[in-house]
Amino acid sequence: MTKICGDAENFATSALRGFASLYRDIVQPVRGGVLRSQPGAKGKVALVVGGGSGHFPAFNGYVGTGFADAAVAGDVFASPSTQAILRIARQANLGGGVILGYGNYAGDVLNFSIAAERLRAEGIDARMIATTDDIASAPAEEASRRRGTAGDVPVFKITGAAAEAGLSLDEVEAVGQRANERTRSFGVAFDGCTLPGETEKLFHVPHGRVALGLGVHGEQGIDEQNLMRPEALAAILCERLLKEAPPKAGSRITALLNGLGGTKYEELFVLWEAIIPYLENAGYTLVAPIAGEYITSLDMAGCSLTITWLDEELERFWCAPVDSAAFRRNAVTRVQDHALSVLTDAPAVYMKSLTDAGRDGGRCVASIMVKLSHALTEAEAELGQIDAHAGDGDHGQGMARGAAASAKAALAAVEAGAGPATVLAAAADAWADRAGGTSGALWGAGLFAFSTAFDDSAVPDAQSLSTGLRRAMEKITALGKAKPGDKTLMDALVPLVERFEQGLRQGENVSKAWNEAAKASTTAAEATKDLLPRLGRARTHGERSKGYPDAGAISMALSARVVGEALASLSVK
Amino acid sequence: MTKICGDAENFATSALRGFASLYRDIVQPVRGGVLRSQPGAKGKVALVVGGGSGHFPAFNGYVGTGFADAAVAGDVFASPSTQAILRIARQANLGGGVILGYGNYAGDVLNFSIAAERLRAEGIDARMIATTDDIASAPAEEASRRRGTAGDVPVFKITGAAAEAGLSLDEVEAVGQRANERTRSFGVAFDGCTLPGETEKLFHVPHGRVALGLGVHGEQGIDEQNLMRPEALAAILCERLLKEAPPKAGSRITALLNGLGGTKYEELFVLWEAIIPYLENAGYTLVAPIAGEYITSLDMAGCSLTITWLDEELERFWCAPVDSAAFRRNAVTRVQDHALSVLTDAPAVYMKSLTDAGRDGGRCVASIMVKLSHALTEAEAELGQIDAHAGDGDHGQGMARGAAASAKAALAAVEAGAGPATVLAAAADAWADRAGGTSGALWGAGLFAFSTAFDDSAVPDAQSLSTGLRRAMEKITALGKAKPGDKTLMDALVPLVERFEQGLRQGENVSKAWNEAAKASTTAAEATKDLLPRLGRARTHGERSKGYPDAGAISMALSARVVGEALASLSVK
Repeated sequence: MTKICGDAENFATSALRGFASLYRDIVQPVRGGVLRSQPGAKGKVALVVGGGSGHFPAFNGYVGTGFADAAVAGDVFASPSTQAILRIARQANLGGGVILGYGNYAGDVLNFSIAAERLRAEGIDARMIATTDDIASAPAEEASRRRGTAGDVPVFKITGAAAEAGLSLDEVEAVGQRANERTRSFGVAFDGCTLPGETEKLFHVPHGRVALGLGVHGEQGIDEQNLMRPEALAAILCERLLKEAPPKAGSRITALLNGLGGTKYEELFVLWEAIIPYLENAGYTLVAPIAGEYITSLDMAGCSLTITWLDEELERFWCAPVDSAAFRRNAVTRVQDHALSVLTDAPAVYMKSLTDAGRDGGRCVASIMVKLSHALTEAEAELGQIDAHAGDGDHGQGMARGAAASAKAALAAVEAGAGPATVLAAAADAWADRAGGTSGALWGAGLFAFSTAFDDSAVPDAQSLSTGLRRAMEKITALGKAKPGDKTLMDALVPLVERFEQGLRQGENVSKAWNEAAKASTTAAEATKDLLPRLGRARTHGERSKGYPDAGAISMALSARVVGEALASLSVK
Repeated sequence: MTKICGDAENFATSALRGFASLYRDIVQPVRGGVLRSQPGAKGKVALVVGGGSGHFPAFNGYVGTGFADAAVAGDVFASPSTQAILRIARQANLGGGVILGYGNYAGDVLNFSIAAERLRAEGIDARMIATTDDIASAPAEEASRRRGTAGDVPVFKITGAAAEAGLSLDEVEAVGQRANERTRSFGVAFDGCTLPGETEKLFHVPHGRVALGLGVHGEQGIDEQNLMRPEALAAILCERLLKEAPPKAGSRITALLNGLGGTKYEELFVLWEAIIPYLENAGYTLVAPIAGEYITSLDMAGCSLTITWLDEELERFWCAPVDSAAFRRNAVTRVQDHALSVLTDAPAVYMKSLTDAGRDGGRCVASIMVKLSHALTEAEAELGQIDAHAGDGDHGQGMARGAAASAKAALAAVEAGAGPATVLAAAADAWADRAGGTSGALWGAGLFAFSTAFDDSAVPDAQSLSTGLRRAMEKITALGKAKPGDKTLMDALVPLVERFEQGLRQGENVSKAWNEAAKASTTAAEATKDLLPRLGRARTHGERSKGYPDAGAISMALSARVVGEALASLSVK
């Protein structure tokens, strides 16, 4: 809904003044519209575009070098008056004649036609380009009745570039008309828009449905379907447009995926990813395509795909530099090669241990990580349920994902003959990369700190395990800023460290000391059910977690038990 | 609501791929983020920014010359992993050290801190700038606990420009920290956002209310009020920010009015117009302010105002050229003088009639236009009611407004001594300019055509009235493409013309012929209640208008009667 309005009848003028104030380096306000602040060369053809307000950046945002010389803004969704068009066209005229560009709507046709006639009567040669790109608005046999929508952008951009290049009025008009004849759009709507000052939407699309071909002011569409996946939506948009390829279409096109205001950038990018293969499989080369909000309809939710079939001249003008509020770019100098090369990460290189003992130690560490991964995958659902009482319920998933990536990385390091420090560091990094969330970051950092206590040429012993475990605890404490009693993984980690160190001091062997420590850790983890969280999610989730243990403490204790069982079977000294 | 999604867990990566494909001239995709496609100079400090997805253009849209060298994108509303930050920072490093820029949220702090420490351990000097601009998120005494919001844009833009200028790591860090210390934001929310794949909003703002200080992920705000006018909203935003001016603030600031996704450009421009006087009255000079969608929160409705108090160095870096997907501009070379000069129209110059008869004739025309204006103003409400059955109900308003402007222009022309052709032409243009809508355009064009039958040096006579009336009808027919029976003003105009011509042919005087014609026109206008519209609004409003006459025909007949009465009293030959 439109929420910032003031007096509804002044909305369009007030928006125009605010816009002109912000973009004063590009535009200069005049009554009812804007002119370029740096006029084009004397004798150049002037392109004057316009239509109703409520569609920003249409049309004021199109004014600037390489695009339009002026824009005329009507009231919200209403044509500008004949007089406003006349007045601004006279001011924009550079002596080379004027092209009036507008979308093919009855009110605009009327006012721009009268203005063109009046200009000619005054001795200013005036031509008209009415965009007719919306294929849903009339059948192909009646193409001249079609409405103009996002096709405004390529058609006027190309026309403006031709004018900027110094072509004559006849030539610019011909280029613009050809751009319009080779441009098609098809749009869908997810919901309607609200006029400034109104509390109800001007029109609706039922919840969970998508209206095909619905006009940007609510003009009747041609079909309605259930919301669909991006691939299905991409197929509908592309199929309908490609079916209407113009004569002598050629294989080079540009495309504009336009959002109407309520459909956001990332949604458009997701849809764009689904559109690319469709167009490429149809044999087309995409030249400098764009996606974003180029012609909106207040807060309307929906989008449209526009295709312009290029020829050599249209391509040159489409790629020419432009500097307007809505659209700025330097010249596109080369056709962009479409295959996207994702920069691949350098393949991991693991240092080979110099000793058999080191390689044995590496294998020990990896086998423990594999066991941990199995155990956490098995516990995934249960951990998720516990976490759901106090958080997002994604703790089990994160731990399982982190441990699995970690085991895989550890095995790859072992394969390269790495020692225990390298194997555990590789496991730590993979964990941090894949687990996600706060606990993923803390586990990754803790395991990495642990690895620094190992020696790559020796099997880990009691001393290095003890040092590593303490370093992990200290790192996690420093980063997470939690202490026992805060209802976090620290409640299980601190008893583990303290009981393990105490056992070793008392002369217990590694396995015995660790397993006793794991027991203490488990008891403490279960006791967190009597605690209330004090950090982070405390404010939002405190009460909800009453009576349930902390999932992070439970997974920490479980991990301690798994490592204990592994240490017993490995008989680490 | 987010409507284009696919698999929710892949939304962020899919959006990233789509974005990188579209902006390949600027960015190059890497796993988990993007790098500049044209890397900066060797030895330059690299700025790596990042945070959760769902905030486009934050953060991928900030990558480009003069801004960031790389961006790391987490899942929707989730921090990127330590590993992703590390990996991308290593790739972005140009040998001059790395600045990690992020908003001050727990998950981001954790992951970026660990990454910075790891980078330093690897020999890459890494510094951190965590933005803390949101003054609603913690009191001033605890400024370091504040969250980072739209302040990301000036802080990172300034930091990036400092790096581009070749400053050392220490210097760039100092500039960036100073920018953050001198940047404050305050935001309001009108409604919450929907996570991809969800059908319910993540949080709500009650209908008709505005939540002050609500965080972009729904973090608790500080107050809730009723929706208010732009001036009141501007006052709240400015007052709160100005109260927190930093030490040694100075009088030069820049400002960013940011929309969160569901609050559209024109609304932002309307609000911006209300903000300007507030800041200027406080004694500030605005340097290159911006408004638009610079950091969104999916489809959340709301906006925030950010102010950065500049010093010489910060101003220079803020105004430096930048070329990223989100923000492109050439250098701002001069401080923009804020007083907006609206290009004023050339004052109207009316040709003086050479004869007394011509000036008399001009007065006649003007007096008729004045009477017409009075009559249409009186009939405004009634015409509005009639129109409400078949249209927007604005016909009465448009006619009254057009006629009033028309009378005013006619009197001004008379004042200058103009003859009847000039007076009527001036009246016609003013009508077209002010009346609005289709009928305004048709009336303006019709009256202008009418004026061409007059002679500026003579009082209009029967012949010129007859010729003028027919020209008006022909012009309106050509433009409006309606004929009698279509339920438009033509139903009243055609009988007027035909009966007037017939009367003159039968030897009636002008007054008698016109008044009889006006009667015929009135009968025909009332009979339109039995017609259904066939053009334009026929599809949408056809049934609704059943049983009611056409407002355009009624106002045409009324005008004919008023002119008839005037002609009787003027005793035109």
